[in-house]
Amino acid sequence: MAAVAWEAGKPLSIEEVEVAPPQKEEVRLKILFTSLCHTDVYFWEAKGQHPLFPRIYGHEAGGIVESVGEGVTDLQPGDHVLPVFTGECKECRHCKSEESNMCDLLRINTDRGTMLSDGKSRFSKDGKPIYHFLGTSTFSEYTVCHVGSVAKINPAAPLEKVCVLSCGICTGFGATVNVAKPKKGSSVAIFGLGAVGLAAAEGARVSGAARIIGVDLNSNRFEEAKKFGVNEFVNPKDHNKPVQEVIAEMTDGGVDRSVECTGSVQAMISAFECVHDGWGVAVLVGVPNKDDAFKTHPVNFLNERTLKGTFYGNYKARSDLPGLWRCI
Amino acid sequence: MAAVAWEAGKPLSIEEVEVAPPQKEEVRLKILFTSLCHTDVYFWEAKGQHPLFPRIYGHEAGGIVESVGEGVTDLQPGDHVLPVFTGECKECRHCKSEESNMCDLLRINTDRGTMLSDGKSRFSKDGKPIYHFLGTSTFSEYTVCHVGSVAKINPAAPLEKVCVLSCGICTGFGATVNVAKPKKGSSVAIFGLGAVGLAAAEGARVSGAARIIGVDLNSNRFEEAKKFGVNEFVNPKDHNKPVQEVIAEMTDGGVDRSVECTGSVQAMISAFECVHDGWGVAVLVGVPNKDDAFKTHPVNFLNERTLKGTFYGNYKARSDLPGLWRCI
Repeated sequence: MAAVAWEAGKPLSIEEVEVAPPQKEEVRLKILFTSLCHTDVYFWEAKGQHPLFPRIYGHEAGGIVESVGEGVTDLQPGDHVLPVFTGECKECRHCKSEESNMCDLLRINTDRGTMLSDGKSRFSKDGKPIYHFLGTSTFSEYTVCHVGSVAKINPAAPLEKVCVLSCGICTGFGATVNVAKPKKGSSVAIFGLGAVGLAAAEGARVSGAARIIGVDLNSNRFEEAKKFGVNEFVNPKDHNKPVQEVIAEMTDGGVDRSVECTGSVQAMISAFECVHDGWGVAVLVGVPNKDDAFKTHPVNFLNERTLKGTFYGNYKARSDLPGLWRCI
Repeated sequence: MAAVAWEAGKPLSIEEVEVAPPQKEEVRLKILFTSLCHTDVYFWEAKGQHPLFPRIYGHEAGGIVESVGEGVTDLQPGDHVLPVFTGECKECRHCKSEESNMCDLLRINTDRGTMLSDGKSRFSKDGKPIYHFLGTSTFSEYTVCHVGSVAKINPAAPLEKVCVLSCGICTGFGATVNVAKPKKGSSVAIFGLGAVGLAAAEGARVSGAARIIGVDLNSNRFEEAKKFGVNEFVNPKDHNKPVQEVIAEMTDGGVDRSVECTGSVQAMISAFECVHDGWGVAVLVGVPNKDDAFKTHPVNFLNERTLKGTFYGNYKARSDLPGLWRCI
């Protein structure tokens, strides 16, 4: 059984599909839990992308290895796993770099709808292929992934909870702890208090940040955010000046770190301009629209601010996830 | 004797001026060597700034303490020193931060023309005040500086050479070794091969960078640059595509580090976009025009590139210069 998207924006159809056996360096998984990320919706709507239909979406899931293809040695049937949209081949320059998780072979690719080994799909219905999504396609009872896109998880981990490590939680939490790296007692602004932003706030909390300032246009989110360590709130709508100026005034010149989790380019600019000169670091997480331009006065950089982006919180799926599940 | 700028753009006039004794927390220096930085010219031309005349320019110099004011304990007459345009009070948050040298009290201030303690000038001619520049005003036989803007140097250091540590050399060298921090065997692009760019290249050389790519619109600079470790050259005029694309092709995806030393916002954008995804770091050094906008697609950040700026190579004048002079 799988939830198939036959056309852009049309309701997914739950039906039986064929899932071919795993080929070389592939594994077939039984998906037990899957969640819904806005990225699935975005590509299902097919706004501004190359439409690729029929397709099976889903990329935030937990499951069990059902069978393995030729050459797969570090996974076996019965293993608990999380499929991950940005894999780790362990061989390329990115995988060998301590600083990056953007695997040359298994990096996210929203245009690709087939398997790497033979350019074919493992899903079909009445002999007609159905395309894959992000190398995961977890809106399906069974799916086939490249072994490099599958992270093994301790069977003691509750799969119904740790499945969210496949995307949003790692993205936000890692953006803070792996990239922004706030110091104990420091101040951190989090832009956007959705799931990713809350995970970013949690990263600030466990890092010992003293002030965690949540920024969101929806004040209803503030109550929930308190559970994740957010202890001050700013709604840009409540102010007549740019939110970066509001934050600079609240913090005597700016926060030590900021993490942008909205995808709005205006929030990105605010997140950068609200960090303190001298040592401030802003981290971009949200996915912008393809025509967006980040724009600021270069003196904001010269005044010793740093701007960087991250992808999946800089986690390397296979190396880092096995040790991470205990955190949630 | 001093070189006085009476009006914007008019030739400096060499004449005798009065230099008042140092007040509290000030020292009077005898300047032995001073060099000319483009920043002096820029403010002498007074394009786009508040003109402040008459004024004594100059900020890259070496000299000897002539007398000290009340409260000055760590300098005494006879000490060899470098006046520095960005001082170090050792008390403020910036001075106490390991990451910044942008002292709250003694940060560069191009608008201020008088001493901090009493808002008055120490220079006069026939009773009329002459303004200071950057707290240094080294185009004068004698000058008065705040003690925090004066770095003590070992008397064994050749003042006629180390005077250039007061500005350009530290700015470029520090941008590479303190901020970009290239690894041994890595690739570094240097944008602009003037004095600052050559110092940045030297920083890459001593860091053990394997490929040091010099980028300049003036190919005549390439020969000299070889002495500072530059071993490949790109003149953007020789190519029909943006220089960042040329560099990406030369380096299989981009350089590991880049340092921008021109002040052109287009070069800043190129310097950022030419670093490798995953781990590339670009450092901005050049001073932009006040109306410039840095503009790039935010995905260039999300792909795990870092952009930061530096000011005086992140050196803390009083703490770092005494140990640095042996490098040149």
